[in-house]
Amino acid sequence: MRWIHYSAPGAAPAYGLLEGDRIRAQRGTPFGAHEASGAVHRLEDVRVEVPFIPRTFYAAGLNYVQHILAGAARRGETPNIPARAEIGYRAVNALVADGEPVVIPADATQIEYEGELAVVIGRRGHQLSEADALSCVLGYTIGNDVSERIWQKSDRTFWRAKNADTFKPMGPWIETDFDLDAAATTVRVNGTVTTQFRTGGMLFGIARFISVMSRYITLHPGDVIWMGTDGKSPALKAGDVVEVEISGIGCLRNPFVAESS
Amino acid sequence: MRWIHYSAPGAAPAYGLLEGDRIRAQRGTPFGAHEASGAVHRLEDVRVEVPFIPRTFYAAGLNYVQHILAGAARRGETPNIPARAEIGYRAVNALVADGEPVVIPADATQIEYEGELAVVIGRRGHQLSEADALSCVLGYTIGNDVSERIWQKSDRTFWRAKNADTFKPMGPWIETDFDLDAAATTVRVNGTVTTQFRTGGMLFGIARFISVMSRYITLHPGDVIWMGTDGKSPALKAGDVVEVEISGIGCLRNPFVAESS
Repeated sequence: MRWIHYSAPGAAPAYGLLEGDRIRAQRGTPFGAHEASGAVHRLEDVRVEVPFIPRTFYAAGLNYVQHILAGAARRGETPNIPARAEIGYRAVNALVADGEPVVIPADATQIEYEGELAVVIGRRGHQLSEADALSCVLGYTIGNDVSERIWQKSDRTFWRAKNADTFKPMGPWIETDFDLDAAATTVRVNGTVTTQFRTGGMLFGIARFISVMSRYITLHPGDVIWMGTDGKSPALKAGDVVEVEISGIGCLRNPFVAESS
Repeated sequence: MRWIHYSAPGAAPAYGLLEGDRIRAQRGTPFGAHEASGAVHRLEDVRVEVPFIPRTFYAAGLNYVQHILAGAARRGETPNIPARAEIGYRAVNALVADGEPVVIPADATQIEYEGELAVVIGRRGHQLSEADALSCVLGYTIGNDVSERIWQKSDRTFWRAKNADTFKPMGPWIETDFDLDAAATTVRVNGTVTTQFRTGGMLFGIARFISVMSRYITLHPGDVIWMGTDGKSPALKAGDVVEVEISGIGCLRNPFVAESS
C-alpha cells in the first residue's frame, strides 16, 4: 500500500492511497483512522508534499562500510567503524518534498548527496526486542541527506552542514509493503548512475536500531529513522538533478539550484 | 502575558492566559488566532502540560563560560570555548511538563541538571539581522537539560545522554514580557540553592544566535531554542526534586525517580 501526501489544485494537503497513477483520496492520516473520501486524482495533476512532518527526526549516520571508508579517505583520517548502533538527529526545517529544489547556499563549496532508506514509525514502541522491533513500523520512504562537507568538518554540530533549509528531501510517498532483502538503492545525477548499493547492507539493521533506541527512547507515530547511506557522491552543482531510487518504494527526484542573491 | 497549556479535569489540553492563579481559557493557540472562551480555571485545579511540542528543538549547548570550564575539568580536558554561535539539537521524545517525573534509567550513573532559558519562536524568521532577530520571538520558558555525563562522554551522539525519555522538562508556561538583563537563573535541589547565574551572561546572546542560524535556517512558529546553562550540578539521585527558577518567568519543578524494573 502506498500512502501519498499531496495537494490537489486549490485544495489543502491531504492523504491518499496511490494505485498506479491514481490517488484514492482519504479522510484522516496513515497514523490514525482513515477512510476513502470517494475522490480520485491522477498523480500528474497533484503536487507531491513531504509525506509527513516527523515528530522526532532520527538518523543513523554511519551505517554502511564503504561510505565510512570514503569519508575517512576524504578527510585523511583512519576509518572509525561504529561498534554500536548510536542514533543521531536531523532537523525538520530542512525537509522538502519530491520535486522541490535543493538550494545551494552561496557560500557552500562541496555539496554531496546521501541516498537513504527512511523508516516511518506508525505505532508507539518502547523497550522492544529485536524480534518485536518492526511491529512499530508503518512503512518506508526515501531520504536524501544532502551534506556540505567543508562545514561538516569545520563546525561543532551539523546545523548547516546537514540541516540548512532544503537539505533534506524526503518522499515521494510511504510504501507499507517492502522487501528490504530484495532492495537496491540507486542514485543518478542528471540521469547517470553514480552510486548503487544493496539497501539492506547496513552495519546495524532496522530491528537492531529500534531495539537499542527503544531501551531509553519511546518511539511515536510520525517519528522517522533515516538509515544511512553507502558509497560516495560526486560534488554537486547548481543545475544538477539527483534521483534516489529504492526498488520497491519509488524514486525521489530533486533539482539543485543556486541561492538567489 | 503568560500562556499556559493545561488540562482541566476530564477535558482535552487547551491554552489559557494565566493571571495570578487564574487561567482564562482560550480557543486557539499562542501561535495563531485565539480568543477567550469565557471559561476560567484555578491553576491548582488543572494539570500543567508541556507548553508546546517544538517543530524543531534547537539547543545552544556550550554558551556560558563557567559551565564550559566545569565540564572540561570534569573530563580532564583543556576548556574549548566556542568562537562561534553554532546551534545543536535536542529530541521531542524526551519532553515532560512541569511537575512530571524525570525517570533515571537503571543503568545511569551520573545524572545532572542544566537550568536553561528557552526561547519560543512565534513568527517565521529568515536571514534576520541581529537588530531584527528578536522580532520572531513570541516569549520565553524554562528548560532543564538533564544529562547523563558518562554516556555524554562515551557515546558518539547525545541520543541517550541528553535525549532519553523524560530528560527534557520544559515549562511551566510561556512568558511574553521578559527582561533578560534583570533575570537570574536559580537552581535548587530539595529546596537548597545549588547553582545561580545571570541568565543574560551568555557567550552568544539570543539575537546573535537567531541571526546566525537564520542565515541558513528558516525559523518557524513553534520552534524552540534552549540557550545553555552556567555553573555545574551536583550528582542527582532518585528522590531529589529539582527546581529551575528564572526570575520574571517562573519555576520549573520536577521530581527525579528511579526507573521501575
